[in-house]
Amino acid sequence: MSQEQIPKTQLAAVSDDASGFEIREIPVVQANELEPGRALVKVLYSGVCHTDLHVIKDDWPVKAERPCIAGHEGAGIIVAINDPISKLKVGDKVGVKWIAHSCNQCEFCIAGDEPLCLEAKCSGINAQGSFMQYCPAYTSQLTPIPDNLDMAEAAPILCAGVTVYKALKNSRARAGQWIAIPGAGGGLGSLAVQYAKWMGLKVIAIDSGAEKKKYCEEIGAAAWVDFKESKDIVAAVKAATPDGLGPHAAIITSPQPEAYLIAMEYIRPRGTVVAVGLPPAGAYVKADVFFTVLNNKTLTSSYVGNRQDAIESLQIAADGHVKCRIQTVPFKALEKVYTQMAEGSLVGRAVLDLFA
Amino acid sequence: MSQEQIPKTQLAAVSDDASGFEIREIPVVQANELEPGRALVKVLYSGVCHTDLHVIKDDWPVKAERPCIAGHEGAGIIVAINDPISKLKVGDKVGVKWIAHSCNQCEFCIAGDEPLCLEAKCSGINAQGSFMQYCPAYTSQLTPIPDNLDMAEAAPILCAGVTVYKALKNSRARAGQWIAIPGAGGGLGSLAVQYAKWMGLKVIAIDSGAEKKKYCEEIGAAAWVDFKESKDIVAAVKAATPDGLGPHAAIITSPQPEAYLIAMEYIRPRGTVVAVGLPPAGAYVKADVFFTVLNNKTLTSSYVGNRQDAIESLQIAADGHVKCRIQTVPFKALEKVYTQMAEGSLVGRAVLDLFA
Amino acid sequence: MSQEQIPKTQLAAVSDDASGFEIREIPVVQANELEPGRALVKVLYSGVCHTDLHVIKDDWPVKAERPCIAGHEGAGIIVAINDPISKLKVGDKVGVKWIAHSCNQCEFCIAGDEPLCLEAKCSGINAQGSFMQYCPAYTSQLTPIPDNLDMAEAAPILCAGVTVYKALKNSRARAGQWIAIPGAGGGLGSLAVQYAKWMGLKVIAIDSGAEKKKYCEEIGAAAWVDFKESKDIVAAVKAATPDGLGPHAAIITSPQPEAYLIAMEYIRPRGTVVAVGLPPAGAYVKADVFFTVLNNKTLTSSYVGNRQDAIESLQIAADGHVKCRIQTVPFKALEKVYTQMAEGSLVGRAVLDLFA
Amino acid sequence: MSQEQIPKTQLAAVSDDASGFEIREIPVVQANELEPGRALVKVLYSGVCHTDLHVIKDDWPVKAERPCIAGHEGAGIIVAINDPISKLKVGDKVGVKWIAHSCNQCEFCIAGDEPLCLEAKCSGINAQGSFMQYCPAYTSQLTPIPDNLDMAEAAPILCAGVTVYKALKNSRARAGQWIAIPGAGGGLGSLAVQYAKWMGLKVIAIDSGAEKKKYCEEIGAAAWVDFKESKDIVAAVKAATPDGLGPHAAIITSPQPEAYLIAMEYIRPRGTVVAVGLPPAGAYVKADVFFTVLNNKTLTSSYVGNRQDAIESLQIAADGHVKCRIQTVPFKALEKVYTQMAEGSLVGRAVLDLFA
Repeated sequence: MSQEQIPKTQLAAVSDDASGFEIREIPVVQANELEPGRALVKVLYSGVCHTDLHVIKDDWPVKAERPCIAGHEGAGIIVAINDPISKLKVGDKVGVKWIAHSCNQCEFCIAGDEPLCLEAKCSGINAQGSFMQYCPAYTSQLTPIPDNLDMAEAAPILCAGVTVYKALKNSRARAGQWIAIPGAGGGLGSLAVQYAKWMGLKVIAIDSGAEKKKYCEEIGAAAWVDFKESKDIVAAVKAATPDGLGPHAAIITSPQPEAYLIAMEYIRPRGTVVAVGLPPAGAYVKADVFFTVLNNKTLTSSYVGNRQDAIESLQIAADGHVKCRIQTVPFKALEKVYTQMAEGSLVGRAVLDLFA
Repeated sequence: MSQEQIPKTQLAAVSDDASGFEIREIPVVQANELEPGRALVKVLYSGVCHTDLHVIKDDWPVKAERPCIAGHEGAGIIVAINDPISKLKVGDKVGVKWIAHSCNQCEFCIAGDEPLCLEAKCSGINAQGSFMQYCPAYTSQLTPIPDNLDMAEAAPILCAGVTVYKALKNSRARAGQWIAIPGAGGGLGSLAVQYAKWMGLKVIAIDSGAEKKKYCEEIGAAAWVDFKESKDIVAAVKAATPDGLGPHAAIITSPQPEAYLIAMEYIRPRGTVVAVGLPPAGAYVKADVFFTVLNNKTLTSSYVGNRQDAIESLQIAADGHVKCRIQTVPFKALEKVYTQMAEGSLVGRAVLDLFA
Repeated sequence: MSQEQIPKTQLAAVSDDASGFEIREIPVVQANELEPGRALVKVLYSGVCHTDLHVIKDDWPVKAERPCIAGHEGAGIIVAINDPISKLKVGDKVGVKWIAHSCNQCEFCIAGDEPLCLEAKCSGINAQGSFMQYCPAYTSQLTPIPDNLDMAEAAPILCAGVTVYKALKNSRARAGQWIAIPGAGGGLGSLAVQYAKWMGLKVIAIDSGAEKKKYCEEIGAAAWVDFKESKDIVAAVKAATPDGLGPHAAIITSPQPEAYLIAMEYIRPRGTVVAVGLPPAGAYVKADVFFTVLNNKTLTSSYVGNRQDAIESLQIAADGHVKCRIQTVPFKALEKVYTQMAEGSLVGRAVLDLFA
Repeated sequence: MSQEQIPKTQLAAVSDDASGFEIREIPVVQANELEPGRALVKVLYSGVCHTDLHVIKDDWPVKAERPCIAGHEGAGIIVAINDPISKLKVGDKVGVKWIAHSCNQCEFCIAGDEPLCLEAKCSGINAQGSFMQYCPAYTSQLTPIPDNLDMAEAAPILCAGVTVYKALKNSRARAGQWIAIPGAGGGLGSLAVQYAKWMGLKVIAIDSGAEKKKYCEEIGAAAWVDFKESKDIVAAVKAATPDGLGPHAAIITSPQPEAYLIAMEYIRPRGTVVAVGLPPAGAYVKADVFFTVLNNKTLTSSYVGNRQDAIESLQIAADGHVKCRIQTVPFKALEKVYTQMAEGSLVGRAVLDLFA
């Protein structure tokens, strides 16, 4: 691997401003130009996440440094490295995640909570992401990818997978308990169903349509609630649990305030609702104080995961317990993928083949 | 004690409907009339809680069975008992709490979470409370009162004390960490300050006025923010912590939505906001999804406490670490106490002397 | 069911002293003779546990009140009840466990830790157990048995199942981590393997012989170490984990000091060894202080489980995730079962059919 | 500070073999010679720990690389640094601890558990310690020392303080519960008493003699057991708790097997015994399996602490809650300190003034 030629130029999806991006040729950082603490990762595949769209459209309170290169589900191979301390080496399969770098010195890093690092670098915001063929990544947050995991399938685990996996951990639901997953048939949701099932949780899949129902059942959901057909979602979700008290937790992947409000209603006393995913600015959740207190309910949140969460979520996929429905498309299809995302017509998770 | 005469009649504050209550003479349940699992408690003192007012005014989603007798901070002595299994006996000092009875069989009782009991009886709602001289209480939730604790001072610990103590436990804040307490100079708040200090927490007292500032400092607050004088409460609370990141937790005793909203802003990443207290129906909390997720914040809630929490909160008071500012008033002053409560003119916690 | 005739006499295995027991005819407590807080349980099946043998042989520090009737894996049906508070009723399927009664008032009961109840009654020690056809059981610790679980298969879950299930909880091992189970092919061990697998743990089965190896693999063990063939068990167990650091936890069902000693060696730093099962008096565990501290290892223990653990362990079996290898034998075979136990020749768990 | 002259030579306590050490002149690593990731720390004070003696005498399973320089309670000032990533800078007050370096990449480092780092460097073993005037320390594990903490008093907190503080955390004892501290009047023990009291724990001090009794009471012990005068230590420790069930936890700073054995007896059911301190090889703890399991007891261990524990233990001392009894002696008195340690005649913690 070390003898592989590193080209002088590469293709990258560069966004100069909020109007969009362009796939164009830019220079590759050469091995001798790598800053200390960096590795050059040849990105083979990169998943496309809704977040990338927010980054480019600039509709978030946190703004990207322009020009920016988004992408944070990159699965690739190290082709050069400038870091004598790192155990990583040329030839290693690694993942480029949303958290691109953390300081390892602040109170959050010390606690293994590096997504909250006070000086975190994020892919697309203030670090170059995986929508480029050769990414000069910080070594500090590169995640080793198990050998027996297909690289294209590894890609979406690096953000979507780790995010729902950590959210399930944060839900404090134990094996044998019930968990509701609104949007169970979607990208995040279907991964959540599979991780939850593997943990021994009983899943109430909430989504709509016969096709999604079939898919959710195939991947292990124990109960199904069609939110369009159901006249009373709260009652239907509660009724899906044997004692009618509702699920012990819910993972909310949707930014819709409505999804939170009803989840705070249908969860069981002492239950937990976990918010994941970063919506556009201005999304609020509401909860009724009286019933929240009376029932000791909790609204918590989960923001990607730390290095250990990333390792674990990949290992679970490598062990065959979780499989993302992906469609691999060429790099140049990125614009189309965004369009399909915005329309809601995308089936499964799009994974770019950076060299196709 | 056993030779004490149990009178035939007693005074009780009976509420026939939402218009109010009347202190009138009613029969005393005699020793031979006690249902199994009950003790007759001669109530010496009873604290007056805002909740009693909600119960009587019927402005809650949960409605009282009429006629009702409110009161759930009753400190008294057992004068008769019909329960061969209970370890309690005539002469024992005991507390009558909000949770008057729990089933000991549902999933919540089994987990020691009896405030969530599916068949819980609550004082004033579906069990007689402590605004009567001889309360025929369920033995299952009577709390032993330590001998070296003054009975009048024990009274408010039975609800206000246990509630803030449990909320502090639920906040997951550890000794050495910072906690914000809005309303620190008030009844619940000042107890919270003292329990928090005893736990090794550093308290940011939030309230208003020079007198409350002095009081909060006397009882151990490490920092003070005057919410009326402060131009930017969020900034002021954050600035009170040495690194400017804000407190690790906040206990919200107020039902004002505003208090929650700003607490979700000023708490530190990974921090927890704890709601306590049952407001009138229709109070909502709101939280911005983006920043909640980005900072892994949690909104949780705490509803009174279980039997162990009650025992512990009383013991801490008996050990001298917590002292409630009470003003003992005769039973017949109850109406006036409610008026002062509604006006906000009550200083300290009112404790009724049932026999004065 | 309520019309079922309750006979005047029954067969019971009565032990008058440490020399043994006799199956003889004794009176049945009639419905109108039941003490308050009791139910008459018609025991259909009862598992036979090693502990019963200790009880009868009196080789424990805790001594049985004689004459005693052992048996604590009894699956039966309530045929009479004298408890107005209990939600149980005639016709309910219930389990008679080791913990027969708890006070519900001591600090341990309050915490949901009733096996530690200061006044606990145990089946065979100071309460009548399930080696009788009609057991006058305390209602407080009867466990509901799910309808879709075979009664003979439910029996061994009531002690063996709940014990290993709770031990796995106490091990703090998380889904995806490794756990060693010495004695994996035996009664407790094989249940532990199945519960562990269901929880997402990766099991290193430690036992001996080709037949047990095959069985362990069938029920889901991820790795196998033959303790008789292995020259270095510690090395072999560590080598079974991908990084060679050893399993995160071990469940020790054996009373042999050797099993503890090597488990404290082969577990991973920060790992936990869980002792279960009550050996004869005088069994000790030893651990090297230097390496225990240097590696932050923990030796903990688990003693049956609480009411919730019992409910959960039965539910998991009812859901089909755990199946005990039982051989159903007639009541009168009890003596022979003990002989086989003492010889080590018993295959699977013996379950008595009380009416065969 | 940056203009301070860095001398060419310094005094250091160098040990060439297990026969002892010599304070002699050796070169100082100059600013331009510092390896990447290192800072030159001018050590002002260094506490002397029993562990240093083990390191030099080589009576541990882990052997030092010779020649070695022990010392791991060093409080000093950075006079040069070669680390562009570190937030530390020349002039910062820092502590040199037992854990001198960790890899920040293994599973333990990722979890914030860096004392278990698979490639940890320890002061005196495979890194130069604080028994030298200018220590070329790794920046990764230097601990910032608060400005308002006296440097000589900070020294012993860096090992003795953090060790007992972390052990108290690992004990899982909560505010209001009881903890036994054998050796309460000694170096580790007296720090443990103070940290425990600050956490709200009630301390049973176990030690011997009127002077130590007085001292323990002064620093906040709630009860005292003289192990020499007591005829039955187990009974005496249990009797010190109001309900006679014994303390919830015990911190064992002694390597004597006897101390563990009796602690496993006197702790309360569900209680935890925490081993701290690294004894010579061959020290074993024993525990009776029957009663350990029957009472759900736990033996755990604690090995120094992580970076956060170090920061917290220093902050608590800076806040005035903990004060170590130190006697400051000149560097050249080190040999005498060791002699006093071996004899047991040392009063309080010895702190070397490296420049006296």
